[in-house]
Amino acid sequence: MASTTETYTLPSTPHPSRQTRGESSYRPKKAWQSRLSFLRSKQPTGSEEQLSRSNTRQSTASSRKDEWWRIHYFQGMINDIRRRAPFYWSDWKDAWDYRVVPATVYMYFANILPALAFSLDMFAKTKMSFGVNEVLLASVLGSVVFSIAAAQPLVIVGVTGPITVFNYTVYDIIVPRGTNYFSFMCWIGLWSLVMHWFLAITNACNGLKYVTRFSCDTFGFYVAFIYLQKGIQVLTRQWSTGDASAYLSIMIALLVLGVAYIGGVIGNSILFHRIIRKFIEDYATPLTVIFFTGFVHIGKMRDIELQKLPVSKAFFPTTDRGWFIDFWHIDVGDVFIAIPFAILLTILFYFDHNVSSLIAQGTEFPLRKPAGFHWDLFLLGLTTGVAGLLGIPFPNGLIPQAPFHTNALCVTRIVSDDDESEAKGHTRRVVDHVVEQRVSNLAQGLLTLGTMTGPLLIVLHLIPQGVLAGLFFVMGIQALEANGITQKLVFLCKDKALTPGSDPLKRIERRQAIWYFVALELFGFGATFAITQTIAAIGFPIIILALVPVRTWLLPYYFTQAELNVLDAPTASKFTMESVGGVHGDLEIPVVGEGGENEGRSSLEDGDEAERGEVGKKNDLEPSSSMPNRGAALRRTSLLSEREGMELKSLRTRSRSNVRPE
Amino acid sequence: MASTTETYTLPSTPHPSRQTRGESSYRPKKAWQSRLSFLRSKQPTGSEEQLSRSNTRQSTASSRKDEWWRIHYFQGMINDIRRRAPFYWSDWKDAWDYRVVPATVYMYFANILPALAFSLDMFAKTKMSFGVNEVLLASVLGSVVFSIAAAQPLVIVGVTGPITVFNYTVYDIIVPRGTNYFSFMCWIGLWSLVMHWFLAITNACNGLKYVTRFSCDTFGFYVAFIYLQKGIQVLTRQWSTGDASAYLSIMIALLVLGVAYIGGVIGNSILFHRIIRKFIEDYATPLTVIFFTGFVHIGKMRDIELQKLPVSKAFFPTTDRGWFIDFWHIDVGDVFIAIPFAILLTILFYFDHNVSSLIAQGTEFPLRKPAGFHWDLFLLGLTTGVAGLLGIPFPNGLIPQAPFHTNALCVTRIVSDDDESEAKGHTRRVVDHVVEQRVSNLAQGLLTLGTMTGPLLIVLHLIPQGVLAGLFFVMGIQALEANGITQKLVFLCKDKALTPGSDPLKRIERRQAIWYFVALELFGFGATFAITQTIAAIGFPIIILALVPVRTWLLPYYFTQAELNVLDAPTASKFTMESVGGVHGDLEIPVVGEGGENEGRSSLEDGDEAERGEVGKKNDLEPSSSMPNRGAALRRTSLLSEREGMELKSLRTRSRSNVRPE
Repeated sequence: MASTTETYTLPSTPHPSRQTRGESSYRPKKAWQSRLSFLRSKQPTGSEEQLSRSNTRQSTASSRKDEWWRIHYFQGMINDIRRRAPFYWSDWKDAWDYRVVPATVYMYFANILPALAFSLDMFAKTKMSFGVNEVLLASVLGSVVFSIAAAQPLVIVGVTGPITVFNYTVYDIIVPRGTNYFSFMCWIGLWSLVMHWFLAITNACNGLKYVTRFSCDTFGFYVAFIYLQKGIQVLTRQWSTGDASAYLSIMIALLVLGVAYIGGVIGNSILFHRIIRKFIEDYATPLTVIFFTGFVHIGKMRDIELQKLPVSKAFFPTTDRGWFIDFWHIDVGDVFIAIPFAILLTILFYFDHNVSSLIAQGTEFPLRKPAGFHWDLFLLGLTTGVAGLLGIPFPNGLIPQAPFHTNALCVTRIVSDDDESEAKGHTRRVVDHVVEQRVSNLAQGLLTLGTMTGPLLIVLHLIPQGVLAGLFFVMGIQALEANGITQKLVFLCKDKALTPGSDPLKRIERRQAIWYFVALELFGFGATFAITQTIAAIGFPIIILALVPVRTWLLPYYFTQAELNVLDAPTASKFTMESVGGVHGDLEIPVVGEGGENEGRSSLEDGDEAERGEVGKKNDLEPSSSMPNRGAALRRTSLLSEREGMELKSLRTRSRSNVRPE
Repeated sequence: MASTTETYTLPSTPHPSRQTRGESSYRPKKAWQSRLSFLRSKQPTGSEEQLSRSNTRQSTASSRKDEWWRIHYFQGMINDIRRRAPFYWSDWKDAWDYRVVPATVYMYFANILPALAFSLDMFAKTKMSFGVNEVLLASVLGSVVFSIAAAQPLVIVGVTGPITVFNYTVYDIIVPRGTNYFSFMCWIGLWSLVMHWFLAITNACNGLKYVTRFSCDTFGFYVAFIYLQKGIQVLTRQWSTGDASAYLSIMIALLVLGVAYIGGVIGNSILFHRIIRKFIEDYATPLTVIFFTGFVHIGKMRDIELQKLPVSKAFFPTTDRGWFIDFWHIDVGDVFIAIPFAILLTILFYFDHNVSSLIAQGTEFPLRKPAGFHWDLFLLGLTTGVAGLLGIPFPNGLIPQAPFHTNALCVTRIVSDDDESEAKGHTRRVVDHVVEQRVSNLAQGLLTLGTMTGPLLIVLHLIPQGVLAGLFFVMGIQALEANGITQKLVFLCKDKALTPGSDPLKRIERRQAIWYFVALELFGFGATFAITQTIAAIGFPIIILALVPVRTWLLPYYFTQAELNVLDAPTASKFTMESVGGVHGDLEIPVVGEGGENEGRSSLEDGDEAERGEVGKKNDLEPSSSMPNRGAALRRTSLLSEREGMELKSLRTRSRSNVRPE
């Protein structure tokens, strides 16, 4: 079960990379050596680390500042690899888990159907330059590269709404000038590759430590609304086929929304046996899509013409061209005109991809494998360049698909609210652990590749656009429900007299402060949403990016630190943020977090390690799990000497009394 | 505030009629006298009653048997009047309560719209013998008579689905014989009047003590399904106007269902200030109907022809006739052929009306005014005869409208689940009291009468049938949710591991027993539903009625008494069942009830009197409340001598330690 490698890299805390940071700050010179020899790098044992960590903490304040302001070229990427590489083999082995199956199926639908809808948009607005096959190939490219090589394989990469906007805005600007569109896009991709790599080499992702829930929620809110808007747009387009077709499509969309939503509600209820319930939760959305695709062929509906998803010939580009772009057939001047566009694209991707990664690795998910933002940005540059050369849309991290993916991989348990008053029957779910692996991402990509074959394209062509609109509504609403802005709005709407005192927002004395905070977020959302409806759409990443300095420097003028600690929080845990040098100094992860999907997070953090360990032992779904959790660590004490075993046990006891993340 | 009358009739227990029973069993000969002089009848004081009650209880076993097997003609009606008459004035005064307004508005829509849909059915199936005006007039007749004269003014009376079935089945059977339909129906009504009065005089409603949740739930389930079925039928009828019209109607119906349902969910949540929340809960359904009536005139929908509610000329019968039926224009033979039909009608009404009354006064509603089944059956005979003479459908008690009416009149409070763990934020609603009065019933009837005027008929004609179908879905689903069968099915579907131990069904060791019980109920529902789809539809009341002896004599062979006590329960409390001689001996009201809408009922029963009293004092919505509750009783001690006051106080203390209904 545990290879030698793993035994070596086995950390005794659930956040094993802390020791790596300790290590790297002590031995920066050894970076290249250890990168080359990471498979054999000797890591300190648990007790050593325990000792060294306290030293690190004392010296951090001075040494880290020096560390992160001076650019250590390649340092970020190297550390990312060094941190993640020890888990690479387990990323494949851990995929031997049932959760990978529903996650793959769900992500296939949640990725390919919106991608097809976006292709519909681009198809129309770029005069058929981009079609279904280009979009599918971009998804496959992203999926294969990132699932195999990324430091954060949970992040689903594909064609997003924003890049769709980018693509046809460029088309509108450039094509009237007589420039070859594909060559120009290729140059944007190539320039952007250079910029991405520059950012990756100079550790630019360290800026992410200033990115908090404030901007992530705003961006997530925007993306969720884009889904709702797209759903409505798809439906309004149905009138071109006739009234009956339009109203049938709306009816189907409403039914898809209703059924899939009820499926989600049942999945979160205590109805049915655990296995049936989980099945409903996992497959409700895909099965709803399949069911309603068939449903429209029943009875009187058979006679109504419905628009289906558009598809083209298998594996060939939509326009009459090869897959490789002759990027040299372009004016030299245009090559340089591509630079400002490449800058915009790079800003978009820097923010969009990294925010996808942050949200997909948010504090609500108890991740145990380290993140790596620098290395992934480097990879993103690569795929951007390749996509440019192939004449396909540039893929990047997908919201809300990426967090949905992590969510689908969560192994949850339902616990009674109160142990002493179990009879009350209030139960809630806690996330026990996430099945962190690379297979679900790869598999959904390969399924997409399979979809590009003739027969499957025909099957795909059966799906009515009304079903697609329904799916958009489901995704939009689910994303909205999980969003921190929505949750704050719900809090503000709640009857004051009945709001429980345990709600962290209750600790804020100035209720006005919450209103202002939400208003600012909504203003950011509104500005972004408004700009994407204009010709200046291409500039929207700048607005979103501007929220970060607003949060960091302006907000503290009005809000007190205590208020900000409750209202805002780092998106990802300190453990995940290790890759970018930790979270911004002022912010502490609140004891009871808000803004995440998982209500029970706080209590999970309370009994964090203990529960993971115990369930690690009990969990029969995961027989070959080699998660480096404490339970596993404890099991292995049998291989160690009695003395070492005692050490681990006392270590466990010690950290139990101090389980809250520091 | 308190008139002399009231001071005299003021009982010192919350179930004041118990003393009446005590009285009546002691002085049966005085019945007629006291009926004539009920307004001045001297009732025993609290302490006297306390003494006499214990005597009564001892002697009940022997004397009551004798009492209820020997027919004391008119006894039931007389007792009903004697019991209820003291509250008659308060029935009007207590209507000075805000809850009456939303209850009236809601009942107007929930009564008139289904009535119109039924008229649609009858219009088509009786060759226009019955139209909108006949149905509306029947509703008005029922409403006026019962709101003014009934012992149970909460019970909404109108045209039901079953009577629709009855009417057109009679039409199919009789008209081919050449008989005048209206004259024949009139004779059915007149015979039925005689039978109703015979039943009322012979105290036949005493049989209701054998009617439990078992048959009420089955009947309620059937009626809820009829609503869903009718909704679907209305929608399928839309295809006659065209595909676009049909799908638009379905879309509208789904939207109405969604919006009204969400309104209900918000009303039960802790969102928004209490006043806004209550407004949404009260008016969500009516406003949804109004909104979507306008909605279909927006944009592209304007061009789609939609079927509207059918209406006819104001105040005139649909066919060319006067309002009075020439019932003498019929063969003498036909007069007697009407007798078997009248018997079926009487069985239907005996069951349907009384079950409506039982459910509308179910244990989940903390009623404080006595019921009167015998007297109401007498009144029902009267309206049946009058309706026959006017040539309008026979009105009777409406399910689910009658319980919805009581529900709309509930004054609820939201309480924290646990006082000690308030921070948990689990809240639930408890019904504090019901605004028992006659005005909401009368007012909705008068609104219906107003609707028969020309202008309002035109407004009504604007409502698309799709909206109606949506309303049917809402009513059907809400009725199903509150149904005991659904609740048992949900329990059976629940994950055993997560079902709280507090669920009373958990006390049943043989899980199979629950399955069998539910299966029996569903079999009864299935048989009833099936028979109404055939020509034998007219006989369906017999199946429902047959469930009562099955429950009483067959079920105890398989189920243990303990199981039956949990699975089944009297529909109404002992207090309400006083009118029919109490509940069937074997049945005890379980401590934690099931099968009702109100989860928190048990705790309300715990602190029953105390809370009623306190809220009676605090409740500013009900300033002129003259409820004969203990709080009021206590206030009046200031008018009494010190000694008497002390007596009342000690009485209060004594009965507090014994608050659970015996």
